[in-house]
Amino acid sequence: MKPQLVQGTRDFSSAEVLKRQFIFDTLSNIFIRFGYMPLETPAMEALETLTGKYGDEGDQLLFKILNNGLDQSEKQAKARADFEELLKGKNVKGISERALRYDLTVPFARYVVMNRNDIAFPFKRFQIQPVWRGDKPQRGRYREFFQCDIDVIGSDSLLYEAELIQIYDQAFHALNIDVIIRINNRKLLEGIAIEAGFPEKFADITVAIDKLDKIGWDGVAKELEGKGIAGKSFDIIRQIVASVSMAELKICFSTSNSIAQKGLDELESVFKFLEGYKALNKIQLDFTLARGLSYYTGCIFEVVADTTAPGQEGVKMGSIGGGGRYDNLTGVFGWDGNSGVGVSFGADRIYDVLLQLDRFDKVPENSTRLFFMAFDEASLIYAFNVVQKCRATGINSDIYPEAAKFQKQMKYADRRKFGTVVIIGENEMKSGILSVKNMNSGEQKGMTVEEILKEFSI
Amino acid sequence: MKPQLVQGTRDFSSAEVLKRQFIFDTLSNIFIRFGYMPLETPAMEALETLTGKYGDEGDQLLFKILNNGLDQSEKQAKARADFEELLKGKNVKGISERALRYDLTVPFARYVVMNRNDIAFPFKRFQIQPVWRGDKPQRGRYREFFQCDIDVIGSDSLLYEAELIQIYDQAFHALNIDVIIRINNRKLLEGIAIEAGFPEKFADITVAIDKLDKIGWDGVAKELEGKGIAGKSFDIIRQIVASVSMAELKICFSTSNSIAQKGLDELESVFKFLEGYKALNKIQLDFTLARGLSYYTGCIFEVVADTTAPGQEGVKMGSIGGGGRYDNLTGVFGWDGNSGVGVSFGADRIYDVLLQLDRFDKVPENSTRLFFMAFDEASLIYAFNVVQKCRATGINSDIYPEAAKFQKQMKYADRRKFGTVVIIGENEMKSGILSVKNMNSGEQKGMTVEEILKEFSI
Repeated sequence: MKPQLVQGTRDFSSAEVLKRQFIFDTLSNIFIRFGYMPLETPAMEALETLTGKYGDEGDQLLFKILNNGLDQSEKQAKARADFEELLKGKNVKGISERALRYDLTVPFARYVVMNRNDIAFPFKRFQIQPVWRGDKPQRGRYREFFQCDIDVIGSDSLLYEAELIQIYDQAFHALNIDVIIRINNRKLLEGIAIEAGFPEKFADITVAIDKLDKIGWDGVAKELEGKGIAGKSFDIIRQIVASVSMAELKICFSTSNSIAQKGLDELESVFKFLEGYKALNKIQLDFTLARGLSYYTGCIFEVVADTTAPGQEGVKMGSIGGGGRYDNLTGVFGWDGNSGVGVSFGADRIYDVLLQLDRFDKVPENSTRLFFMAFDEASLIYAFNVVQKCRATGINSDIYPEAAKFQKQMKYADRRKFGTVVIIGENEMKSGILSVKNMNSGEQKGMTVEEILKEFSI
Repeated sequence: MKPQLVQGTRDFSSAEVLKRQFIFDTLSNIFIRFGYMPLETPAMEALETLTGKYGDEGDQLLFKILNNGLDQSEKQAKARADFEELLKGKNVKGISERALRYDLTVPFARYVVMNRNDIAFPFKRFQIQPVWRGDKPQRGRYREFFQCDIDVIGSDSLLYEAELIQIYDQAFHALNIDVIIRINNRKLLEGIAIEAGFPEKFADITVAIDKLDKIGWDGVAKELEGKGIAGKSFDIIRQIVASVSMAELKICFSTSNSIAQKGLDELESVFKFLEGYKALNKIQLDFTLARGLSYYTGCIFEVVADTTAPGQEGVKMGSIGGGGRYDNLTGVFGWDGNSGVGVSFGADRIYDVLLQLDRFDKVPENSTRLFFMAFDEASLIYAFNVVQKCRATGINSDIYPEAAKFQKQMKYADRRKFGTVVIIGENEMKSGILSVKNMNSGEQKGMTVEEILKEFSI
């Protein structure tokens, strides 16, 4: 058989693992600096933990695990009946009682509810793990991909919104991508609909202004007109959305619009916490921003690469991060009223942006500093002893495992992209002066073992 | 619903993640120091990649993924027929064409065959990822657990056997466990059977002497007698197994016993590479050692905790590592004659040993150095600015998110096990002298922000 990858999944070579690890380590360090701690949950969850949490479409995309032992004779009759139920589109425990996690949010909620007596709230956690979805694979969309979530649950303090903005700001700075951090508040979006006199058309209005970037005000006007929103109502919407400061915004809302006033208060509190903070990236209010409206209840965030920043003009990528305040994460598991706020980092997209911008310079092409070659049995043993000394000194080193021809060993060194090669033959062994060759410059010089240990140890 | 974990799986809390990460990081660093590079493969493999590789029992334990969309009306008839086949114990692609990986070896072989034209051989890789098996869960046996494998493929040089012994030696030293590294060679085990005159009873003899530790020579004699092996044949076996040096061993084998001679040569070559190496642990020849006999063809290794080492007397744990030389890893995918050698680390067992010995001292109980408390709105904003300064200086810091009562905040600090708490009220804000309390000693002193930044930055 010709072995193949499962469609929509990927192997990660060492070069890719090291680059991805750099992203994950950079983020983890910043999360820990802000008091967030790692959590890991299993790949498999009970099917009933996952179904009904992601809508009908999500349920269809779950990877369900077939129960083991269905072919045991005493179980066959029941299995056959259960399978008929499954064909009717029902989730039948008799056929499958487990599934692969679809995101990190539901497992997090499950963990919080299961461990509520042992957890100190507010509970700050981050989680970087793969998730699986049966989406149709296409460019940039995989059936196995990593999510990177950071959340705090058990407090409605707006200090955390400020903290997460700072985390975005510092994390992308550490990753060497200039970004724009967009902020909005779901309550303001509701307030707009109320102010315009169409509270019941909140979703239509939000969907229309979310497209402003792409279709301009003319397009938005057309779309809203189609929904019966025009004239003065449209003017109100336009004025609010076009506001560029809190002061400008506040004038737009009537004092009786309590949901809008609450949204304004929340944003003001967040900015009070950020007063005096020297942001490394652009932080912008954006009243067109709409994310996961059925889920978020307060502030919402989105991060995009800043295409006006030097060198980043060519970046064509949607959002590389997003999140917001939610009010009932654990409600699905019977524990209501637990407010939380969280953001996620789009690890795959961040990887693609860094690759495009050639900004993985902190990740070495090859972490092996020295590669040893020998050309007869005696010098191979001698070289193996030297390589062991290097490794004991902390120098990442490797050696060709036999006394093969020079060309063959050089070809191998070339393919593995080693930067420095140490050549040991009969003469080198006798004199103790080893030939050290820089593979980039081609320069070669004689060095003793002691000199090598000194020069290449960090 | 009451949320539950899937049987045989675990959540890892932050304290556990940090300890596990310490093990994985320690091992990764040593692997990279020896020129091995990380590889990651997807959780799902094609079912046909996995079936038939682990014996009938293994096939039964695979977690198979149910194909999506079986309930689509046009697919139902075929699905029903396919399910009947599945009930007959066949693997039917129509029901399941994917499964979760069962180990890291088969995905590694698949990767090597798929990428044979791009890989420079010898190919040195390590892989630390979870695997899934439908075993009956019991103490210490999980349905999701991590494997940690390191292999080199594409060379039969015995230098690599020496290198892997050094890796075991240095890795367990870095993990702070004293171990015994046991070495044997499968060819010697075959040679023993030949020397005793019962080449066809190789498996019986190996199984019997493998039990020597537990049942003693009397027990081994009894067991072998039951298989028709006694008298002079038994004496030969006993003499060989009881040998404590290569010199002693060599006398036991006749020169015509070519497989034994090959085994002796291999061991001698390995020891030649190790000459002059100052081992940090005990490295022992052990002719009773038998591991995966249907798989390994040359040297075999096993690591156990040394219960004679100071403090380790109480460790009751089987092997915490093992491996050996194999000759046909990629044969199952149609590419024969690819010799390789590899070892694995039992991550879960290593974790348990370190926990029992209380040797996670390099992993901090809490990586948050400072925790801030404030008692009114103004000082909360002030404190948030100070915490931000600490974080910007690289000090892991956290803050209580609201001006709650002292007792409440202290209780939270206690539960999260913070070592140092900085208390900020109206007075502290005015004077700029913050109250810094050591939570272990109870000692409290006044410090300026600058003094704090200086004292707590690493």
